[in-house]
Amino acid sequence: MVKTNPGRFFEDYTVGETIHHAVPRTVSGGERALYHALYPARHALYSSDEFARACGLPASPLDDIAAFHVVFGKTVPDISLNAIANLGYAEGRWLKPIYPGDTLRSSSEVIGLKQNSNGKSGVVWVRTKGTNQSGEVVLDYVRWVMVRKRNVDAPAPDTLIPELKPALEVADLVVPEGLTFDDYDYTLAGEPHRWGDYDVGETIDHVDGVTVEEAEHMMATRLWQNTAKVHFDATLREDGRRLIYGGHVISMARTLSFNGLANAQIVAGLNAGAHANPCYSGDTIKAWSEVLDKAETGVQGVGALRLRLVATKGGAPFTLKGEDGKYLPHVMLDLDYWALMPM
Amino acid sequence: MVKTNPGRFFEDYTVGETIHHAVPRTVSGGERALYHALYPARHALYSSDEFARACGLPASPLDDIAAFHVVFGKTVPDISLNAIANLGYAEGRWLKPIYPGDTLRSSSEVIGLKQNSNGKSGVVWVRTKGTNQSGEVVLDYVRWVMVRKRNVDAPAPDTLIPELKPALEVADLVVPEGLTFDDYDYTLAGEPHRWGDYDVGETIDHVDGVTVEEAEHMMATRLWQNTAKVHFDATLREDGRRLIYGGHVISMARTLSFNGLANAQIVAGLNAGAHANPCYSGDTIKAWSEVLDKAETGVQGVGALRLRLVATKGGAPFTLKGEDGKYLPHVMLDLDYWALMPM
Amino acid sequence: MVKTNPGRFFEDYTVGETIHHAVPRTVSGGERALYHALYPARHALYSSDEFARACGLPASPLDDIAAFHVVFGKTVPDISLNAIANLGYAEGRWLKPIYPGDTLRSSSEVIGLKQNSNGKSGVVWVRTKGTNQSGEVVLDYVRWVMVRKRNVDAPAPDTLIPELKPALEVADLVVPEGLTFDDYDYTLAGEPHRWGDYDVGETIDHVDGVTVEEAEHMMATRLWQNTAKVHFDATLREDGRRLIYGGHVISMARTLSFNGLANAQIVAGLNAGAHANPCYSGDTIKAWSEVLDKAETGVQGVGALRLRLVATKGGAPFTLKGEDGKYLPHVMLDLDYWALMPM
Repeated sequence: MVKTNPGRFFEDYTVGETIHHAVPRTVSGGERALYHALYPARHALYSSDEFARACGLPASPLDDIAAFHVVFGKTVPDISLNAIANLGYAEGRWLKPIYPGDTLRSSSEVIGLKQNSNGKSGVVWVRTKGTNQSGEVVLDYVRWVMVRKRNVDAPAPDTLIPELKPALEVADLVVPEGLTFDDYDYTLAGEPHRWGDYDVGETIDHVDGVTVEEAEHMMATRLWQNTAKVHFDATLREDGRRLIYGGHVISMARTLSFNGLANAQIVAGLNAGAHANPCYSGDTIKAWSEVLDKAETGVQGVGALRLRLVATKGGAPFTLKGEDGKYLPHVMLDLDYWALMPM
Repeated sequence: MVKTNPGRFFEDYTVGETIHHAVPRTVSGGERALYHALYPARHALYSSDEFARACGLPASPLDDIAAFHVVFGKTVPDISLNAIANLGYAEGRWLKPIYPGDTLRSSSEVIGLKQNSNGKSGVVWVRTKGTNQSGEVVLDYVRWVMVRKRNVDAPAPDTLIPELKPALEVADLVVPEGLTFDDYDYTLAGEPHRWGDYDVGETIDHVDGVTVEEAEHMMATRLWQNTAKVHFDATLREDGRRLIYGGHVISMARTLSFNGLANAQIVAGLNAGAHANPCYSGDTIKAWSEVLDKAETGVQGVGALRLRLVATKGGAPFTLKGEDGKYLPHVMLDLDYWALMPM
Repeated sequence: MVKTNPGRFFEDYTVGETIHHAVPRTVSGGERALYHALYPARHALYSSDEFARACGLPASPLDDIAAFHVVFGKTVPDISLNAIANLGYAEGRWLKPIYPGDTLRSSSEVIGLKQNSNGKSGVVWVRTKGTNQSGEVVLDYVRWVMVRKRNVDAPAPDTLIPELKPALEVADLVVPEGLTFDDYDYTLAGEPHRWGDYDVGETIDHVDGVTVEEAEHMMATRLWQNTAKVHFDATLREDGRRLIYGGHVISMARTLSFNGLANAQIVAGLNAGAHANPCYSGDTIKAWSEVLDKAETGVQGVGALRLRLVATKGGAPFTLKGEDGKYLPHVMLDLDYWALMPM
C-alpha cells in the first residue's frame, strides 16, 4: 500500500461531504514578522499593538490575507494537488481576527460538481472554513478548481453548480467586535484619505514595484504549509523556474496598495478573484486599484469600500482585458474585495 | 595578538577535556515560524499548540531537528572550523522538548583522537550536550570530524577510538514526559498510518522535491549561528556556489518525509549519519525512507520506528550505493534515526 | 487628487518643523529570529535572555542596529523618497533597550537646510527620534540627505547648517539602566578580550565574508518597512540588480565584527557614517575595525570603545582611501561608533 498522499481526483468528491484538512497551526509573532519581511506590509492595524488597541482591538491581529493563506494552505493536499487550474473565489468573509497564540484548522464542504465535456476532468466547488481553537469560524470562502479524473471511465456525477453571489453585500460583512475608528490617527496610519474621499470609479496606481525571487515565494508558500509541487520543484519546467503561488501575488498586490489605500485597513470580504496569468521569479509586480462600490457598514464611523485590485508585470496601469475580453498578458491578478476603513 | 578565532587544530584537542561553546540562545515563536518558512515542515505536534496539548505536552515544541541545529551550530567555531570532513554521528538522543522561552547552550567532551597516517590531520570524536536554562541536558550526540593539524610536526596523541553503539536500542530512547497518543487525531495529523502499519524493510518514496536557493540555506545556517565560511562566502569556489550546510539537507529530507511518515512525529534517536555528497544551490532535494527496525517503547501507545532517511539530487529512489560499496553520486544524505509514533 | 505619496521635495522642508512618521511597529521574538537569520548575529546579550539577565537586563533586547533600522525605516517615505544621496549621520544615541512587545514610532525635526549651488537640489538635516509606547525616546540621531527640488524656481530657504559634534564624547553615551558586567561570562560570550585588551590604533580583520543575495536584502529592508523603490524594483537598473539598503551593509559588517569584537556587546553611540560605495547582490561583504578611542563610562566595569567599522567588497583590509582622499572603490561603509564592553 502506498503511504504517500496521491491527492484526490475528480471522481473522489461527493456533493455534501465535508473534508477535514490536516495540520493545525498555531501562529505567533514569528508569522507576523515574516509577513513583514516577505511583503511591503505597512497597514498600521497589523503592525502596531498600540494602534490596534486605539481601534478597539485587544492587539494587532495577523494580517487578513495571511490568515487566508493559513486556512487555504491546509486545503491544498485535499483539494488542489491534482488541480489543473484554480478557477475562482466567491463569498469570502473574514469573521474574526486572528491573534498570536490562536490555532487554526480548515475544513471544506463540497458544494458543487460538474464534469467537463471532455470527460477527463471536472470542476469542484468547495466552501472552506477556517476555525480557531474555540471552534469559532474565523474565515470562510468558496473556491472552485478544475481537477483531473484518475479514471476517465468513472461515471460523471450529477451536475450541481452552486448559486454564488456575484459580490457580497455590505450587510454580509462582519465588522470585528469592538472596532472603532473614533480615535483613528491618520498621521500614524500614513495617509489622510478617509472613506469619504474615495469615489466609485476612481482608480489608483500604487506606483511601487517589487521584483520577486525564488527564495522569497518558496518561503512564503511553505510558511502557509502549501505543498503544491509546482511552487518548489524546478525540474518540473524546462526553464527551471517555479510557478509562484497565486496567493503570493495577492499578498504582494494588497501590501503594495498601501500607497494610496493606507486606511483601507481591514479586508472583510472577498467577492471574486482570478489568477489571470502566471507569475515567475524575475517578474516585477506592480498594482492598481479601482473603487467598485462603497457603503456604510452600520457600525459608526466604519465605512466599506469595494475594490478591484489588479497585479501586473509590466503594461500600463488601468488596462485589464483586450478586445477579445481576455485578460491582457501582463495582468496576473484581478481581485474583487471589500475593505473596511474610517469614515 | 590576533583577536579573531582561528579555530582549533588537531593538536589542540585532549581526550577528556570539555569545551564550553559560546553564544547561548533563547528561542521563540520566531524560530518556529522560520523553520516552517525554510522547510516544508508539517508534523502536527510541531505546528499546533492544541495538537501538542492533546498529546500530553504543555505546548508545541521546537522541531527536534531545529533543536539539533541550535546545539550543533554553537560547536562549529570550536570543533569544525578547520575540519576537512564531517565523518559521522552516533548515539544521538533527544532528552527533553524545547519550548519558546528556553535558552540553550552547548558543550562537547573530547572522547576520542586518532592521527591520520599522513601526519597532517586526524580524527576527533566529541560527545556534545545541549543544556537548557535549568541545566538539564536536552540533547546529546557523538560526532566525529577530520581536522587539520596546525603544525605537522606536533606529536601524535595516543590513539583512542571510542566504542560507539552501531545503533541505539529502543531502551536508550527517552519518551517525552507526559506524552500520550490516546487521543491522537489521525485526520489532523494528515495520514492514517500508525506504527502497526509499517513493516521492517518497507520503503517509502516521499515523492515531493524542493530546489534549493542560496538565500534560503544561508538564512537557515545563520539562524543556527553556524559560522563555517564555506556556507556563506562565494569567493571560496570558482563557480560562486556555496557548500550547503549538511543540516539543511537533513531538515529538508526529514520534512519532506511527512508525505508517507506524517505520524512519525518525534525524532528521539540518531543512530548514524553520513553526508554522502555535497549539496549546492540549484539541486533539487528529494527523499526516501526505509524501515530498518521497529519496537515498543514501553510507554503505552507509543511505538518506535528505526528509519533510514536518504536525501537525493536526482537518481532513482531506493538506490544508495554502487557495486564498489560507495554512495552513488546523487545520494547526499544517509541518516539512521528512531522516530516515535502512535501505535 | 493623487492619493499615493510622492514624497517630499527640498522646498517642502522648513527648519523647526517636526514630521511625525507613519506606521508604528510592535516587535516580537519574530524580529529577533529574523535578524539572526539574515545576519551572522552572535553577540550573546542579544541572543540569550539568560545572558542578558546575568548582565542586569530584564531580557535580551532587540539588536541595537535592528532598533535603528525600525526607527530609520519609518522616516524613508518622508525624508528620503526623493533623496539623491544619503550624506551622513551624527550624534546617534541609543537611550533605552527595546524588548519584545515594545511599539516604536519615529519623528524627525528639520534642523538644517542648504540649497545646492545648482539650484536643483539641497541638503536637509533632520534629528530623528524613536519613541516607545510609553513616550520614552529610545534612540535619536541626526541624518542629512540630498533631496531634489520639485520646482527649480522655488526660492532657496535661508541656509542653516547645524553644528554637529564630530564625535560623541563618552559622557554623551547612555549605559542601559541596571547594566553590569560583574558576572560576565567570557566563555559564553565567545572571546576573552576585554576593554583593557584593546589599544587605540589597533586594527582587526574580521576575516569572514558573506556573499549577499537579492532575496535576503529585500527581506531585511522590508522588515524595517523601508519603502525606497531602488531596493526592490529590478526594472530601475539595466542589469536588473537592486541597490542594497545601506543599513543592510551596516548590519552585516557589525555582525561580522563579532569575530574579534565579541565583547563589544552594545552599540551606544553613532558618531558618523558614510556609505562610500554601493552594494549589489553578488558582492561578498567583509569587515575590518580600527579602535579610534577608548574611555571609561563611569558605570563600574563598563568601558567604551570608539570603533571605525569598515565594510568592503574585495581589496585588502585596512585600506580605506586613495591618494586623492576618496574612498577606494571596494569600500562600501565607513562607520564610526561607540560600543560598550566589560572592562
